[in-house]
Amino acid sequence: MEKYLTKLNNEDMPKYIQIAKHIKKLIDTNIIEDGEKLPSIRKLSKFLQVNNDTIINVYNRLEAEGYAVQRIGSGTYAKKREYTKSFKKDYSDIFKKLSLEELKAYVDFTGENACSDFFPVDSFKAVLNEVLDRDGAEALANQEALGYYGLRASINKYFWNNEIDLENILIVSGAQQGIDIISKSLVNVNDNVIVEKPTYSGALSVFRGRRANIFEVPLEEDGINLEVFKEILKKNKIKIFYLMSYFQNPTGFSYSLEKKQEILKLALEYDFYIIEDDYLSELIYDTNIKYESFKALDINDRVIYIKSFSKIFLPGIRIGYLISPEKFKDVIQNSKIDTDISTSSLMQRALQLYIEKGFWKSHINNLNIIYKEKYVFMEEKLTEILGDLINFKAPGGGLNFYISLSDKVRIDSITLFYRCKEKKLLLTPAFMFYKHYKDGDYYFRLGFSKVSNADIITGLNIIKEIIKSE
Amino acid sequence: MEKYLTKLNNEDMPKYIQIAKHIKKLIDTNIIEDGEKLPSIRKLSKFLQVNNDTIINVYNRLEAEGYAVQRIGSGTYAKKREYTKSFKKDYSDIFKKLSLEELKAYVDFTGENACSDFFPVDSFKAVLNEVLDRDGAEALANQEALGYYGLRASINKYFWNNEIDLENILIVSGAQQGIDIISKSLVNVNDNVIVEKPTYSGALSVFRGRRANIFEVPLEEDGINLEVFKEILKKNKIKIFYLMSYFQNPTGFSYSLEKKQEILKLALEYDFYIIEDDYLSELIYDTNIKYESFKALDINDRVIYIKSFSKIFLPGIRIGYLISPEKFKDVIQNSKIDTDISTSSLMQRALQLYIEKGFWKSHINNLNIIYKEKYVFMEEKLTEILGDLINFKAPGGGLNFYISLSDKVRIDSITLFYRCKEKKLLLTPAFMFYKHYKDGDYYFRLGFSKVSNADIITGLNIIKEIIKSE
Repeated sequence: MEKYLTKLNNEDMPKYIQIAKHIKKLIDTNIIEDGEKLPSIRKLSKFLQVNNDTIINVYNRLEAEGYAVQRIGSGTYAKKREYTKSFKKDYSDIFKKLSLEELKAYVDFTGENACSDFFPVDSFKAVLNEVLDRDGAEALANQEALGYYGLRASINKYFWNNEIDLENILIVSGAQQGIDIISKSLVNVNDNVIVEKPTYSGALSVFRGRRANIFEVPLEEDGINLEVFKEILKKNKIKIFYLMSYFQNPTGFSYSLEKKQEILKLALEYDFYIIEDDYLSELIYDTNIKYESFKALDINDRVIYIKSFSKIFLPGIRIGYLISPEKFKDVIQNSKIDTDISTSSLMQRALQLYIEKGFWKSHINNLNIIYKEKYVFMEEKLTEILGDLINFKAPGGGLNFYISLSDKVRIDSITLFYRCKEKKLLLTPAFMFYKHYKDGDYYFRLGFSKVSNADIITGLNIIKEIIKSE
Repeated sequence: MEKYLTKLNNEDMPKYIQIAKHIKKLIDTNIIEDGEKLPSIRKLSKFLQVNNDTIINVYNRLEAEGYAVQRIGSGTYAKKREYTKSFKKDYSDIFKKLSLEELKAYVDFTGENACSDFFPVDSFKAVLNEVLDRDGAEALANQEALGYYGLRASINKYFWNNEIDLENILIVSGAQQGIDIISKSLVNVNDNVIVEKPTYSGALSVFRGRRANIFEVPLEEDGINLEVFKEILKKNKIKIFYLMSYFQNPTGFSYSLEKKQEILKLALEYDFYIIEDDYLSELIYDTNIKYESFKALDINDRVIYIKSFSKIFLPGIRIGYLISPEKFKDVIQNSKIDTDISTSSLMQRALQLYIEKGFWKSHINNLNIIYKEKYVFMEEKLTEILGDLINFKAPGGGLNFYISLSDKVRIDSITLFYRCKEKKLLLTPAFMFYKHYKDGDYYFRLGFSKVSNADIITGLNIIKEIIKSE
């Protein structure tokens, strides 16, 4: 029993929290096993020379956090927290079970997309009607497998300087579908896939679903750690490297030109392909950051490029596109057909007209002004309110801050999530961005796109109080 | 060389066709191997006692059909037709490479969906605008993981008598996506899946993509052959049986009540689940056919029900739903999120309003009147024009006829496809509806939804001429 006692040495922390924290660690590390009976209240309080009430508090707390089960007349039993199931479910249930109305009562830092407040309803409605007047039922009948020709042509003209073969552009229902259909085409059981650490949870899910071997490479402020990357390449035949080039989700980091070039060189040398998920590169606030995608730099046809319009526009539109290397063009297109035949054609036509009329460009300019302001405000308040409780690097663009809890903080991000939820605040623990969930224990993501300035202040103060009260 | 000679005994058939036909069979059955050099023109003509020109015709024909390659100065080499690659590509290229405008020059019997001519553009436009006026940007911001609550409620009310738990209804982007996400949730490498023989090619693709073991059970006019089905169940642990309950694609067959009940009983006994793809059951012309889905008859929660709105409404809308058994609810929902997060929310809201206002019901009534007439016409003309060249059973509903070429016909359906395409007519060879492609060699599907009555006559006459000229 000495293992309990040795840690009771922190004068600043209430005894019951120290004890609970230590027991949790023992359960997490399997020193106390799942289902093992914990000492009786009397025995433990005597042993630790504390009041019975302190141990009662410890056990209640453990139970509340899912680390113990108390059985009347029998005692208290350790319970290994099943992160994967219970937390994932609790987190996704927020969006499954709360109505939009109920969600409005929350300060919601989980947003990854532009906010609907800034969506240009009137101009979008105008193009929708124009399309229906122009094309009639054809607007909804179209089944071009690659997606609406006009939209592919506009994408090529406005975003790629007409340099892409139109047959290599495939319209998809957002970036998630892009990742899914590429994986179905190219990734089989036991294939090796490299991801950034941390990475987008939706991509991890897809690669897990394909039963791939997943290698993580730590992400640094200018891109992945190339030493670790090369070590993996030397020892394993890698098929795919999935990355986000700008304002990575969740870290907000962007790749330096040097790292981009080096990775493209390695792709040829080691014969792997790059999935570039071009996540939110439209929102650049730091003028030192220049936009240059892997795809644009790629001279060896090694990049499968994915762009979502949903993130920057509105998620409900469900449109994105991907550009296939010539080699995989057919297999990826067939995979799209097997997945859902094609993407809503009316939406494609409306988006095409929206781009063609210049609405898209002015909308993006507008969002840059709005969000830069909010970004600066958020950065300032994070420092002002949470100060040395956290660490973060300002990303210079995008819609998120990635926060690590400083060493002095006594709460992990999952617990922080549950405590915040009680106070009607939602944030995203980093848990799901790592292959080994526990690697994210002291990180979380704050998305500011849907939160008013007043709520940013309220929200950060709630987080502060919770951290301080632990 | 006698093998060539033995078949030259049909007085009715030009010699070069007899010879070509026989050589094709020898290649298909590997008696002549892929890449094997064929006899020189002189040698073969002498041997068969025909003109040189006849053999030149034979070799030209073989090359045109992809059965041979002629190399100048070297000779003619057998080529095994790669059905999977070359035909599949040629078929899908029609829809990838031809613009809608170009397609209009064809008599197109490939349609599986209702025709856009009958789509109620005005009322759909009205509901779209009403949704945008009512919900503004929210109409496109919504990310409810299960799909728009209002639509799920309307589906429950109008189609299920409010008897389904709303949490078990999941909005998907059409039936194909339904099959895909169910498979990703439930079907793993080497899992056993049963399908009808023949079955929908998009389902076969998905199950192949999951690397499942696929068992086919012959489909009869009142449902699958239960003897074969039970034999498979006895010997193998089956996970999923995928079926289409009404006007099956491609056969047009529907299940009898007895077979439905028997299959549901077997599902419980042998612990498998049924994917019921409720394909086009809205279009019933034969008043003897009563609508009663497996799902409605299922008291043991064994059915995963899929319904597409795209087929009957318009494909471009890309909306359908599925009903999960309680047991798989969560895993299927998560699979949807991994696939594409959610389905276009504006379309969901528009469809909901469309149903709620009674437009859906009157649209379906209208389609039943229009298509019953066309169906009767098609049936009549098939008999009148193609007569004893073909066999078919009138399905009593839906939008397709499934045709088998009679024994006296000397052309397979793939060749028929290519010949028809030259004459600007498109049909669907049964090739892709079978696990072993060759099983479909003498079947094809004619969808009449997009073809005018005049074009039905023109089209069937083109088919007749081609068959007769062989």
